[in-house]
Amino acid sequence: MMMVESAPLPVQRVALMIQYLGTNFYGWQRQANKPSIQQTIEDILTSFCHHKVTLHGAGRTDTGVHAYAQVAHFDTTSPIPAARWAKVINSNLSSDILVCESVPVSLDWHARFSAAWRRYRYMIFNSRLPNLFIQHQSWHYYLDILNQDLMQQALTPMLGNHDFSALQRSGSKRAHGWITVKDALCWREKDSIYVEVRSSGFLYGMMRLLIGLLVEVGRKRLSVQEFTNIWQQRRRCDVKYAAPPQGLCLLDIGYNENPFITAAPL
Amino acid sequence: MMMVESAPLPVQRVALMIQYLGTNFYGWQRQANKPSIQQTIEDILTSFCHHKVTLHGAGRTDTGVHAYAQVAHFDTTSPIPAARWAKVINSNLSSDILVCESVPVSLDWHARFSAAWRRYRYMIFNSRLPNLFIQHQSWHYYLDILNQDLMQQALTPMLGNHDFSALQRSGSKRAHGWITVKDALCWREKDSIYVEVRSSGFLYGMMRLLIGLLVEVGRKRLSVQEFTNIWQQRRRCDVKYAAPPQGLCLLDIGYNENPFITAAPL
Repeated sequence: MMMVESAPLPVQRVALMIQYLGTNFYGWQRQANKPSIQQTIEDILTSFCHHKVTLHGAGRTDTGVHAYAQVAHFDTTSPIPAARWAKVINSNLSSDILVCESVPVSLDWHARFSAAWRRYRYMIFNSRLPNLFIQHQSWHYYLDILNQDLMQQALTPMLGNHDFSALQRSGSKRAHGWITVKDALCWREKDSIYVEVRSSGFLYGMMRLLIGLLVEVGRKRLSVQEFTNIWQQRRRCDVKYAAPPQGLCLLDIGYNENPFITAAPL
Repeated sequence: MMMVESAPLPVQRVALMIQYLGTNFYGWQRQANKPSIQQTIEDILTSFCHHKVTLHGAGRTDTGVHAYAQVAHFDTTSPIPAARWAKVINSNLSSDILVCESVPVSLDWHARFSAAWRRYRYMIFNSRLPNLFIQHQSWHYYLDILNQDLMQQALTPMLGNHDFSALQRSGSKRAHGWITVKDALCWREKDSIYVEVRSSGFLYGMMRLLIGLLVEVGRKRLSVQEFTNIWQQRRRCDVKYAAPPQGLCLLDIGYNENPFITAAPL
């Protein structure tokens, strides 16, 4: 019997916009013997592509952290059209991951390196009683009533290009702590306080360390000036608490050339 | 050995404010071999009271329907103080039921019969793509863009005392369909449409039948006048669809003498 061998198809790059509830996953990144978002989608891709697939995400989210519109890409020689991948993946996923859109991108487009900015939001539920409806999407902070105006005052000096080494978790491989913060907002809606930061990049663990320190300003244990001194003087030892992961959500990623038609579902 | 027998303690009535996610329960009411909210709490109460306890709820919610602040009461001869019961019950509950408060009430106060009104809210997520974060608390309606102004116009004539037999699910034991609607509101926040009705009472299945019909007005398949004619002329046969349960939430219950200190956590 003769094997009919067709010419290999050219490599195409596909970008995905992905929403997920992080509650039941050990974060974005593939880990041995622990379910992660990356591994869950990579395994589906590999089974449909008949070759090993690596999924490159724009941002790494920790265990329990969510994403409204994470972005990732992969290369494949599969004949499946790029726009079709969203349906193919979704029909094999459980209900806590959703591919919102899949689009073709050029081979020099990169989910991580082409990104101009990332935006994260943290939700604090600031009430004496818990709220079951948002328990997996917020930090229930009941010790004190937080003052969101002071928290906003503390955030404003962070705008611009600064070294935020004080807000970097140990274990980072990053050479420096310089990033450009483009937006830093804090507001209250009834019992919920939201903190939203848009930045060229985020240091390892930065948002959760920032929220942990910012809450000390909100409860008036730390002045706005002291807060600013800590990060400006790179006093990592004075940043003691990381806020819990379930309040954090990667909202969206910005690209100079946005390949998606769908707006991030905010 | 002599048994020391103390005089039986007097009966006290305790009222509870209860929040729950209905997703994993077969509704409020106790059923054979199916987990319900009533049964879950009754079983805890019975084990602490050392006598059989019946929990009387203010409103019966269906399978999958949620409650922000359901109200219920029970009678007991237990020496546990009324205000203590919230903690006792909560420490034995899973994370989808929460007793917000427990208070002593007089023996003629009744969670159901003393209620002056109930308020329900229905959430429609009206977007092409689903949203994982609210999938268990909303109806994902993606067929058409709904017009919330027309829906509000259809709701307004429902205010006041009317016979809503057209919006009663078959199988009800209720003798008549007369109730007094005190508020009937519809509004949009981005992709979410909310319908909130406050009424002296609700007929069996009323909110879900109402939403099923109201959506036909929102997508312009039914005029506001036709909608009004259907319920005013008690044309039950023209009310064909019940909206799915997960979008529905019992918000709160009103009492002329409100025994609770805590405001309903809306």
